[in-house]
Amino acid sequence: MSRERIYLFDTTLRDGQQTPGIDFSLEEKISIARMLDELGVDYVEGGYPGANPLDTAFFTRKRTAKAKFVAFGMTKRVGVSASNDPGLATLLRAEADAVCFVAKSWDYHVRVALGCTKDENLDAIRASVEAASAAGRAVMVDCEHFFDGFKANPTYALACARTAYEAGARWVVLCDTNGGTQPSEVRAIVEQVVRGGIPGAQLGIHPHNDTGQAVANALAAVEAGARQIQGTLNGIGERCGNANLVSLIPTLLLKPAYAERFETGISPDALAGITHLSRGFDELLNRAPDAQSPYVGQSAFATKAGIHASALLKEPATYEHVPPESVGNRRRVMVSDQGGKANFVAELKRRGIDVPKGEGRLDALVALVKEREAEGYAYEGADASFELLARRMLDTVPDFFHVTSFRCTVERRYDANGTLRTFSEAVVKVLIDGEEKMSVAEGHGPVNALDIALRKDLGKYQREIADLELVDFKVRILNGGTAATTRVLIESHDGAGARWTTVGVSDNIIDASFQALMDSIVFKLMKNRDLAGRAAAE
Amino acid sequence: MSRERIYLFDTTLRDGQQTPGIDFSLEEKISIARMLDELGVDYVEGGYPGANPLDTAFFTRKRTAKAKFVAFGMTKRVGVSASNDPGLATLLRAEADAVCFVAKSWDYHVRVALGCTKDENLDAIRASVEAASAAGRAVMVDCEHFFDGFKANPTYALACARTAYEAGARWVVLCDTNGGTQPSEVRAIVEQVVRGGIPGAQLGIHPHNDTGQAVANALAAVEAGARQIQGTLNGIGERCGNANLVSLIPTLLLKPAYAERFETGISPDALAGITHLSRGFDELLNRAPDAQSPYVGQSAFATKAGIHASALLKEPATYEHVPPESVGNRRRVMVSDQGGKANFVAELKRRGIDVPKGEGRLDALVALVKEREAEGYAYEGADASFELLARRMLDTVPDFFHVTSFRCTVERRYDANGTLRTFSEAVVKVLIDGEEKMSVAEGHGPVNALDIALRKDLGKYQREIADLELVDFKVRILNGGTAATTRVLIESHDGAGARWTTVGVSDNIIDASFQALMDSIVFKLMKNRDLAGRAAAE
Repeated sequence: MSRERIYLFDTTLRDGQQTPGIDFSLEEKISIARMLDELGVDYVEGGYPGANPLDTAFFTRKRTAKAKFVAFGMTKRVGVSASNDPGLATLLRAEADAVCFVAKSWDYHVRVALGCTKDENLDAIRASVEAASAAGRAVMVDCEHFFDGFKANPTYALACARTAYEAGARWVVLCDTNGGTQPSEVRAIVEQVVRGGIPGAQLGIHPHNDTGQAVANALAAVEAGARQIQGTLNGIGERCGNANLVSLIPTLLLKPAYAERFETGISPDALAGITHLSRGFDELLNRAPDAQSPYVGQSAFATKAGIHASALLKEPATYEHVPPESVGNRRRVMVSDQGGKANFVAELKRRGIDVPKGEGRLDALVALVKEREAEGYAYEGADASFELLARRMLDTVPDFFHVTSFRCTVERRYDANGTLRTFSEAVVKVLIDGEEKMSVAEGHGPVNALDIALRKDLGKYQREIADLELVDFKVRILNGGTAATTRVLIESHDGAGARWTTVGVSDNIIDASFQALMDSIVFKLMKNRDLAGRAAAE
Repeated sequence: MSRERIYLFDTTLRDGQQTPGIDFSLEEKISIARMLDELGVDYVEGGYPGANPLDTAFFTRKRTAKAKFVAFGMTKRVGVSASNDPGLATLLRAEADAVCFVAKSWDYHVRVALGCTKDENLDAIRASVEAASAAGRAVMVDCEHFFDGFKANPTYALACARTAYEAGARWVVLCDTNGGTQPSEVRAIVEQVVRGGIPGAQLGIHPHNDTGQAVANALAAVEAGARQIQGTLNGIGERCGNANLVSLIPTLLLKPAYAERFETGISPDALAGITHLSRGFDELLNRAPDAQSPYVGQSAFATKAGIHASALLKEPATYEHVPPESVGNRRRVMVSDQGGKANFVAELKRRGIDVPKGEGRLDALVALVKEREAEGYAYEGADASFELLARRMLDTVPDFFHVTSFRCTVERRYDANGTLRTFSEAVVKVLIDGEEKMSVAEGHGPVNALDIALRKDLGKYQREIADLELVDFKVRILNGGTAATTRVLIESHDGAGARWTTVGVSDNIIDASFQALMDSIVFKLMKNRDLAGRAAAE
């Protein structure tokens, strides 16, 4: 039986950016758009070109390969024609496949916030949809406050939606802007909108999580006929967040209630990468992933030894609502963890590391990784450090060079002009083939000084690391005050386009950074010799 | 019109204890039972007496004043009579008002896990309910795996539920043990159970959050007729957690879809304390509250200044799904680079700072905040630094002391035993009333050393800062590699229970930390003089 298509619309880069504490840089936006494109969502909303210089820069080119790239903006202003509205002109100049207009659909807000008549608002919707269609864009209209508006004045809310539809919008999106609508209400109102003349195949839902039901609201709308869902990665967004696509996608693909009726653009392979994607996104946000997150949390398939644990190991399918591997997660039985070994072998094979059979080195590696992760190392986000650790245990890593000592000094004092300034300096001693080399460098802060001094003279290796560049540096404090454990993640790339991440952990940030810097250089030297990094170019 | 009663059953102390990483002490259990009793839930499930010494000790007396105190346990074993089952005897010895039995209701698990016949399981349910009723307990039966069992064999699942009901159980609770059931399925199956002869007024629902829909599943069951909801504080629980009562209670009390039809045992006053309760519970768990939690999160009523902020301040009711005060939370309009002047004035007033009219200082402050946020300062998360900045511009901040210079050194070298170790030391010079003081300290890393040295001797202020403690330290790298801009956020608290956050930004992490440390100390000195911090005690 042929299944109906559900379209997934991601607004991480637009509505997600409304999350308190989250502000994406241009580089981050580019990298998130790539993640979403690889996941297989249908639409990636990139932001609001014209609203700020960053979003305008982001829209100077299309940032997705497969997904439709969407620019967000307001409908034209009342009192000017569509062709004379500078905001609309900016929006249509953006390099986007589609335009998503936000339009008021609650008569109260039309009067108070827009200060225009209800008909003028309908005219603005119609003219804006027509102008964007004429410019060759697929058009969608986010009907803001739709559900609250519908409760207050169903005729007018529906008129807004119908105007968008009749003007040629590909999608009319019903927004629960304030986030308080209940699933039973969403279902009833979407059904009325379908009866009111807008086909479900052109209806979208944009829920918020203010009562903890954004996912349920999205699914209630789908059951009532809507065929587009708007959400974000890990459910970020204003206030309590948007619908979490990382929860919704596995439900749509794995739960018979949906999988038997619907299909999406997400492949089973992409689904199996969703745990990695979700944790990688938290890493980019520099925050700890939620262990209890549906499907992808570290605890999502964890059982404390108790009444269920031993039965679970015998017959997991009757104790797990979906197989953890289907979403790239793994089973954890908290006391005697047997689940890990197979995953390790798979991870090692992916890197071209043969696992010796019939000896204890694999067990020792599993134990060491667990021990270090308990200390704060995060190998899931530090592929290169994991590979080096594995090769050190199972294989061999050459002794390229040895750092015998270093010293970093940060000093804040008055300079010759009487200005208070801060100076950072690092001294490093390196032993290469029995010869000691000493380098000194100044930098912006102690880690930068150390990085420069460390790579200033590596003797015969110096030319090899010329194309090594550090592109990202993340610091996470794992617990408590200024004496807390610090985790440093460093992302590097080289002239061949490979990228790799290394990790260091210590109660001293300089030490943690030093570990990650060292791993990055050693990994690069290994990679140059084809001794490592087969999985690093992805 | 009279409203139907919904009963709330809390299982924080039993199912909540299955959360990976959570283990309550006896004192914690006692204090949580008190919190729940004050909140006004109907049932507090305290644990599994007999399963471990702690739970047995907890049940040596009744731990609630108003709520019914519930002991959890298994139905009697097959092959022994109820009066000869030692587990059942222990359960009935517990000082509890009610007993909650867990019973298998999926025929597969009856065969594989219990190893008995389907009829023997029904007999065990009947005999256990009768024994506990005879002992004067209110009885409930948690039908484990009910929804999966019903899908596999509806006749048998229903027979288990009916047996409990007919034997005299006050409540038959339908459990979604694996957590994968969808709201539409919960609704349909609960409706079938009601049609199958069990009145909704005796049906409960026990959902899990494995697809992010535990709250929606609870409400779907209520709509289908169930009148008892089992959940936990902040949704803790095995894997992805249980239904979050802290989200459910405000929805039941404030949303017309429920409030008009149902009543609970929770008073409006208790509802207004739920934000405090939720954060206090996280405090007890020693974890940071989730800022995006429905109703009670710090961001639940936050708006980043943007298209909505100025309208929100004019007419909050049309931008907020419930009034924040009704749940004891508050509105936050974030001071940020998108912010308008109105937000500033509101934020300043809340801090007791009068805004001078008709002069340019407010404009200068707005411009300075924008400039600094462009550099990387995040005042939305650093209330105390914002207040100091505002007071410096609009008011005055005394010159308590002056740091004339500092020096941090981190050195990695071999110690006397030939082990490579890293040493951190800081030297600070401070000028107080014309007198220079010099302090030196070692620490775990340069920031910790600087923190200790800075607070080692502040002369006449030393006693005042004795109760100042740094409780959190966050580092965020804003862009690029090791030379990137670094933002440091420091959270402090003092003996009076106040908490405040300060920020520092620099391309040098030591410098950024120094700024945040200095702001924290100055803020504390201001607060001691009642010159600042009126909004910091909440």
